[in-house]
Amino acid sequence: MTLRLQKYFSRTQKTVDRALRRWLPKTSQKPSVIHKAMRYSVFAGGKRLRPLLVIAGAEACGGKAKQVLPTACALEMIHTYSLIHDDLPAMDDDDMRRGKPTSHKVFGEAIAVLAGDALLTHAFSLLSKNASIRGVSPRAAAEVIGLVASAAGTGGMIGGQVADIQSDEGRWRRRKNNPFGTPARLLSFIHQNKTAALIQASLLAGARLAGGTANQLRALASYGKNIGLAFQIMDDVLDRVGDKKKLGKKGSDQANRKLTYPALYGLGKSYRKARACVAAAHASLAPFGAKSALLHELADYLLVRDY
Amino acid sequence: MTLRLQKYFSRTQKTVDRALRRWLPKTSQKPSVIHKAMRYSVFAGGKRLRPLLVIAGAEACGGKAKQVLPTACALEMIHTYSLIHDDLPAMDDDDMRRGKPTSHKVFGEAIAVLAGDALLTHAFSLLSKNASIRGVSPRAAAEVIGLVASAAGTGGMIGGQVADIQSDEGRWRRRKNNPFGTPARLLSFIHQNKTAALIQASLLAGARLAGGTANQLRALASYGKNIGLAFQIMDDVLDRVGDKKKLGKKGSDQANRKLTYPALYGLGKSYRKARACVAAAHASLAPFGAKSALLHELADYLLVRDY
Repeated sequence: MTLRLQKYFSRTQKTVDRALRRWLPKTSQKPSVIHKAMRYSVFAGGKRLRPLLVIAGAEACGGKAKQVLPTACALEMIHTYSLIHDDLPAMDDDDMRRGKPTSHKVFGEAIAVLAGDALLTHAFSLLSKNASIRGVSPRAAAEVIGLVASAAGTGGMIGGQVADIQSDEGRWRRRKNNPFGTPARLLSFIHQNKTAALIQASLLAGARLAGGTANQLRALASYGKNIGLAFQIMDDVLDRVGDKKKLGKKGSDQANRKLTYPALYGLGKSYRKARACVAAAHASLAPFGAKSALLHELADYLLVRDY
Repeated sequence: MTLRLQKYFSRTQKTVDRALRRWLPKTSQKPSVIHKAMRYSVFAGGKRLRPLLVIAGAEACGGKAKQVLPTACALEMIHTYSLIHDDLPAMDDDDMRRGKPTSHKVFGEAIAVLAGDALLTHAFSLLSKNASIRGVSPRAAAEVIGLVASAAGTGGMIGGQVADIQSDEGRWRRRKNNPFGTPARLLSFIHQNKTAALIQASLLAGARLAGGTANQLRALASYGKNIGLAFQIMDDVLDRVGDKKKLGKKGSDQANRKLTYPALYGLGKSYRKARACVAAAHASLAPFGAKSALLHELADYLLVRDY
C-alpha cells in the first residue's frame, strides 16, 4: 500500500469510527443487549472499505467527507448486518470472523438475527438525515436511498447471497440446480451482486451527494464494478492461499465445495482476471484526471492486500 | 365492523394488493426463490391494517390514497419481514401463521432470513420514491423515511421484540432478568414498541406525506399509540380465548409462559384496559371533526375483532 493510501485509510478509519460511536444507539439505551450486539459487530475490526469509498467518491467530485459521513456509516452498517446474517448457523455457519467469535456465538441466534435487522434499519435512519445536510439536494438524498436499497436488495447483495447459498456444497456442478446455465455465469452473478454491487453503490452514493455529473457517475460506476469484482476474486484467492490467522477465519471455501474463481478457473487465471479488472478500473477513471490519484492507488492495493 | 369500515377495508385491501403485486420483484427475476419467498409471505392473508392506517392518516389530513400507496406497501413489507423473522426457529419457532406453513418451513431457514432482509430493504427502496410523488414535499419524504426507520428499529419494533424474547419462558418473573424493574413496566415497553410503534408510524407517515399540520400529527400520534396498545392487548386476549382455527396459529402464549396482559392482569382487567385505550383514541381525534368518522369506527372494531 502506498504511504498516501495508508494515511488516507487510517484517517478515514478514525473519522468513521468516531462517527459510528456517536450515531449507533448507546448501550445504556434499553434493551441494552441489542445495542451491545450492534456495536460488537461494527467494532470487530472492519477495514471500513465502504465508508472510505463513499468519501473518496465524494471527494473525487469536489465534495467534502463531512457531507457524506452519515452515508459512509450507513454503508458500513449494511455491510456489517450482511456479515452477521451470513455467519448464522442456517447460512455459512461461521463461528469466527476477523479472529473474534461471531455475533450468534456471543449473543445467541435470536439476538444476532435482530442485531442484523437493527443495523440495516438504522442505516436507513441515518440516510434519511442526508436531506438536511447543507449542500446536499433533497433529490440527491432521495436518490441515494434508492440506489443503496437497490444495491443491498435482491437485485444486488441479497440476490448474490441467495445464489451463493444455492451453489454451496458443490451443488453448482449439477446443471439442474443452476438457473444461470453455466457455472461461469452463476459465478459472475454471485460476484457482481454479493460484493461488487455495494462497493459500487458506496462510490456512487458519495459522488451523487457531492453533486457529481452524469459523466463522473458513469465513470465511478464502471470503476466500482471493476474493483468490486477484483476485490471478491482476491477474497477467493486469499481464502485459498492466505494466512488463516490474518484472515481470522476457520474453514475454507474449498472444504465447503463453494463455487469460487480458483475452484472454476484455478489460481493463475483467477489472479490474471483480478488484474484485468484493476486495469479496467484504472481506465474508467480517465474523466477525473489528477483528482483520482487515490482511487488509482486503491485499485492497485486490492491486488496486493493480504487480509 | 360497520358496513362502511368493511367496505373501506375491502377496497383498501384490493388497492394495496394490486400495488404490492406490481411493486414486489417478479418471481421470474433471478434468483427466483427469494422473490417467491417474499411474495409467499406478503400474500399469506394479512389484514393490511398498516396500509389502511397509512391511507386513513393521509385522508384525514386531506390527502389522497394514491400519494401514499408506496408508503402503505412499504409498511406492509416491514410488518411481513418482522413476522418471518419472529417465526424463525431461533425466535418464536412457529410452524404455522394465518393457517399456512411459515416461510422457513417452506423455503428453509436461510432463505427465510434473507426474505425478511429483502422485504425490509425493498420497503426503503419504495419509500425513496416518495420524493418524486406530485404534491409530496421532499422534506416530508425524507422525514417519513426517518420516522418509519425509527419505529421499526431498536427504539421501536425491534426493541420490543428483544424485550419480548428476554421475557419468554417465564423469565419475566425473575427480577434480575428484568432491566425495567417491574413486570408491568416491561410489559408496557414490549407493547408500546413491538406493535404500537409501527401502527403509530403508519398513521403519521400518511399524515405527514399529505401535509398534515403539527396539530393533526400530534392527534394522530396519540390515536395511533392508543389503538396500537388496544390492538396488542386484544391480540393477547384472543390468543387466550379466541378460535385457534380462525387465528391460524398453533401453540399459545400461555404454554410459552409469555408476559402478556392476561398473564399479568387477568382477562377482565385486560379487556377494560383495551377499552380505556380505545376511549383515549376517540378523544385524541377531536381536532379532526367529521373527517375522522372512519378512524373512530376502526378504533371500535379493534375491541370486537375475532382474528
